[in-house]
Amino acid sequence: MSSFLFVTPTWDATLWASEMRKAMPALDVRIWPEMGDPSTIDYVAAWLPPPHVVKSLSNLKVIFSLGAGVDAILSDPTLPGEVPIVRVNDPDLTNRMSEWIVLHCLWHHRQQRRLDAQQAKKQWDSFPTHAASAMTVGVMGLGVLGQDAARKLAMMGFKVVGWSRSPKAIAGIECYAGSAEFDRFLGRTDILVSLLPATSDTDGILNRALFRKLSRKGPFGAGIVINAGRGRQQVEDDILAALDAGELHAATLDVFRKEPLPPESGLWSHPKVTVTPHIAADSDPSVICAYVAAQIQDFERDGTLRNLVDRSRGY
Amino acid sequence: MSSFLFVTPTWDATLWASEMRKAMPALDVRIWPEMGDPSTIDYVAAWLPPPHVVKSLSNLKVIFSLGAGVDAILSDPTLPGEVPIVRVNDPDLTNRMSEWIVLHCLWHHRQQRRLDAQQAKKQWDSFPTHAASAMTVGVMGLGVLGQDAARKLAMMGFKVVGWSRSPKAIAGIECYAGSAEFDRFLGRTDILVSLLPATSDTDGILNRALFRKLSRKGPFGAGIVINAGRGRQQVEDDILAALDAGELHAATLDVFRKEPLPPESGLWSHPKVTVTPHIAADSDPSVICAYVAAQIQDFERDGTLRNLVDRSRGY
Repeated sequence: MSSFLFVTPTWDATLWASEMRKAMPALDVRIWPEMGDPSTIDYVAAWLPPPHVVKSLSNLKVIFSLGAGVDAILSDPTLPGEVPIVRVNDPDLTNRMSEWIVLHCLWHHRQQRRLDAQQAKKQWDSFPTHAASAMTVGVMGLGVLGQDAARKLAMMGFKVVGWSRSPKAIAGIECYAGSAEFDRFLGRTDILVSLLPATSDTDGILNRALFRKLSRKGPFGAGIVINAGRGRQQVEDDILAALDAGELHAATLDVFRKEPLPPESGLWSHPKVTVTPHIAADSDPSVICAYVAAQIQDFERDGTLRNLVDRSRGY
Repeated sequence: MSSFLFVTPTWDATLWASEMRKAMPALDVRIWPEMGDPSTIDYVAAWLPPPHVVKSLSNLKVIFSLGAGVDAILSDPTLPGEVPIVRVNDPDLTNRMSEWIVLHCLWHHRQQRRLDAQQAKKQWDSFPTHAASAMTVGVMGLGVLGQDAARKLAMMGFKVVGWSRSPKAIAGIECYAGSAEFDRFLGRTDILVSLLPATSDTDGILNRALFRKLSRKGPFGAGIVINAGRGRQQVEDDILAALDAGELHAATLDVFRKEPLPPESGLWSHPKVTVTPHIAADSDPSVICAYVAAQIQDFERDGTLRNLVDRSRGY
């Protein structure tokens, strides 16, 4: 019997363990710190593991990251270098992320905040509107999540451009790549959607200098930022300052430098900011566990693993 | 030179006339009541025309309705019976309607009202959520608008069922038809989207008896109503009563029995109602005028007219 360990110090994995047992009854599922003999653990699923825990699992075969991003695994400086890391890349998670992104792009585009304010005043004002085709959404990060979002945004009528570190070709989406084409991408973009992985390259990338490079030609005259990547990517004081200076029109943020977002953050109460509590792509534990179980079964049959992390790129 | 008359007593057609002249410079464009000799008018574009005006145009060739619905034309009891009526059916209008519908379906599904309330309290609560596939959207009315909305909702991950008076086949959408299948359609539906034309058959169709037939099995335990058809179709007191009784979970309404919605309506301030001021599918005058001009050009060339209204059906 193989053994499986959850290491999730920031949340209770009881429900996850129960779902994992349902998905793969033959597995001996344990929850750190009650892990028994470390040398008997075959698989670990981790989120922000404390240093030395994963390292202590001397016969570990695979590390599973419990999310699409892997920064919460790679943050462990003692992670054993030779064990493959698999990240979650499940259609359920991808679909949910695109739901959230399409919702918030449409919400801004259709001026729902203005309509809500009118309703609160019982004011009937059928102001002129524009079609989605009058706005260009720029998607940063063109992995599985970015490509799905881009495709669905285009289907809703938005013009869509994309940017990624290495060149990508996506039908119907104009793609830019690398630092040389970054400013041109930003200059085309009315709504910037960030789905970048958290790496040292993307740390603080959503800053005031970037906001100033966004298109000013769209219907709102200034950019909109939607961040569903990682909080580390955004300079939160810069977002507030750019909103107040009219260099940004609005922002919708699902991720923050510190989560939960502290009560003293000015983002909570800024009239142009929508805060969601890192729920953009919350998948069901049952779905994630079924995904992990399927990977383990494939691996035990013929050594196959999908969605492996490239540690040198950091995603 | 052909002559074209706008008859729009409830709004100023100056901008429309200017767009119409741009779209077809060879046209003599007039605005009622400054219409000159009625017998010289070839085409009329109307919205709520006063009785006897359209009838007085003795050499009229085509009547254009300035919207997807034609109730605001057919309401004229003196309308000449032999003149063909053309309604607007332009991709711009269709796309805008689908934007609004997908936005509001996602907004309810993703519990954005609850998230807004949390933000107002600076409360970080990542409550468990469901995927769009856990909800079934039922689209009533499967014309061009309904089919486009159904297709886009399905693409966003919702389960989608449809209902129309006469049977329709749409790839990927389970379709019900006629009164015999209406209750089964309602019993499948978590979010009801109404895009029905305003006819005597659909008057008051969105009533408490209907709300009670909606599915109770969805994530919210009661139905959600989204009306982008016509206000005549909804019994507004029934909506309020059903919301208060928990027989409806929420409502988003773009149309009302009386527009502008009067300040005394309880819909404005009900915490479960979203009011938008008949803006779901406001198309640009320039786009509509280009559509009308293209129809006139085709008609003058070879007599072709598209999107003709069937008066016996009322749409």
